[in-house]
Amino acid sequence: MPGLLLGDEAPNFEADTTQGRIRFHDFLGDSWGILFSHPRDFTPVCTTELGRAAKLAPEFSKRNVKMIALSIDSVQDHLSWCKVTALGRPQGAACKPSQPWRDVCHIPKRGGAGIQSRNGEFSIFVERPTKCSVQEENNIFAVPPLAERDINAYNGDQPAEKLPFPIIADKNRELAVKLGMLDPDELDKDGMPLTARVVFVFGPDKKLKLSILYPATTGRNFDEILRVVDSLQLTAYKKVATPVDWKPGDSVMVVPTLPDEEAKKLFPKGVFTKELPSGKKYLRYTPQPE
Amino acid sequence: MPGLLLGDEAPNFEADTTQGRIRFHDFLGDSWGILFSHPRDFTPVCTTELGRAAKLAPEFSKRNVKMIALSIDSVQDHLSWCKVTALGRPQGAACKPSQPWRDVCHIPKRGGAGIQSRNGEFSIFVERPTKCSVQEENNIFAVPPLAERDINAYNGDQPAEKLPFPIIADKNRELAVKLGMLDPDELDKDGMPLTARVVFVFGPDKKLKLSILYPATTGRNFDEILRVVDSLQLTAYKKVATPVDWKPGDSVMVVPTLPDEEAKKLFPKGVFTKELPSGKKYLRYTPQPE
Repeated sequence: MPGLLLGDEAPNFEADTTQGRIRFHDFLGDSWGILFSHPRDFTPVCTTELGRAAKLAPEFSKRNVKMIALSIDSVQDHLSWCKVTALGRPQGAACKPSQPWRDVCHIPKRGGAGIQSRNGEFSIFVERPTKCSVQEENNIFAVPPLAERDINAYNGDQPAEKLPFPIIADKNRELAVKLGMLDPDELDKDGMPLTARVVFVFGPDKKLKLSILYPATTGRNFDEILRVVDSLQLTAYKKVATPVDWKPGDSVMVVPTLPDEEAKKLFPKGVFTKELPSGKKYLRYTPQPE
Repeated sequence: MPGLLLGDEAPNFEADTTQGRIRFHDFLGDSWGILFSHPRDFTPVCTTELGRAAKLAPEFSKRNVKMIALSIDSVQDHLSWCKVTALGRPQGAACKPSQPWRDVCHIPKRGGAGIQSRNGEFSIFVERPTKCSVQEENNIFAVPPLAERDINAYNGDQPAEKLPFPIIADKNRELAVKLGMLDPDELDKDGMPLTARVVFVFGPDKKLKLSILYPATTGRNFDEILRVVDSLQLTAYKKVATPVDWKPGDSVMVVPTLPDEEAKKLFPKGVFTKELPSGKKYLRYTPQPE
């Protein structure tokens, strides 16, 4: 992939995300990982994609794959003015209940609440927990940002549900450039390219196992992403490869380097060799091993 | 993609292929193009992939997409000793009918035929056309190389049918390195990496529109490749984008830069806007335009 080739180690970048600041290797831990970029919040294809990704999060989790999205939006800014401080820790001046941020951040019309500014970032405090969509996290009540709420709504979920994965805010395009993620055909109002639809799959060794690079106008196929994750994980641990158009449960191919005798022992369900004009015996199938 | 980012122009390389020497830009002409690499001839997944690609060739052709494969095999060597010179132009010494090349190259047991050597390349001549699998091309009778015959046999076709696309012989890995196609986890007997399963899709402007990079052990999904070609071509000519998991015939998204009024005119089948918590009106669907 752009900037990253097969076998390259993931850069151990630091970044701000919708779930706080991360260092990428710490985020990955010993898991598999999928880093996927999208052009922009509040755009149509991205919303359908992140909605589908959110729906599939349990499938990725079951496979021990950590998900993290990325766009060049200032997710940090976006979040910062929606942060709600913890109960009993008012940090700013109260402001009128009619202010638009109450609606935007799902703050109830009544009750003490206010906006504070600190180091140029805005945050919101409330005086007591409410029945609204405020969720507690690290002693901070965080309200999902607007884009997240749109994604949930797209899925038919409660707008206030939390996305099951963080989104990296790559506002200055540092990661996008480093990882070759930009789409020169999609420009923002300043004429700067947006991020393309990239997928990087990393193994537990943090090395790149697979990537795809689609332009902004072509939404990805998340069934295909799950399919290749299944193939990567199966072939990482078994001496098999998956043929064209393989789906989980289909027969697989025995890797060419494995001698016939060993293959027979290793695959007790049987190895079936297809006859070929060359007379070579390399087209060896076996049912998918457990 | 490795070595190539979205919007990069395809390098105008020269290369030997199973259909002769090409210059890439001339090969592409004004068509769309798909360049796809595989690790090695005579290996299982590659055979299933090229078999499927051969079956789908009419679909790509219908979409004005030229196909060309690539591996680090010496396809040139492979072919050169299978070349059969034209009728009446014997260029070498006759040799015994029992020689193995007669079987390998589908030369009939009887009839004048011989092997010639010229500039270090071997070719085969026959004295008259035969009923065997020899095909005329540019006044040269060419017999498909072994790998091609295996691929056809895999498909259940006549072994002697010609693959509907050329395969580049990148013996010295020059293109593989330049285009970032190598898979460090798949080594040949000399410990050198093989080519991964890369797909580059180029537009008629010869610029990269999309790429995928799968390792040797994960066979590709050619339905997905056709799907994205359909998306790329639709979105290149219409002001739409295709949502996640889109398939031809499904509704598409109106691009965000198109004002509502213009969208209504441009898409007479109607534009449907989904309500979202943010209140923004960007999730606009329309039936796939003709």
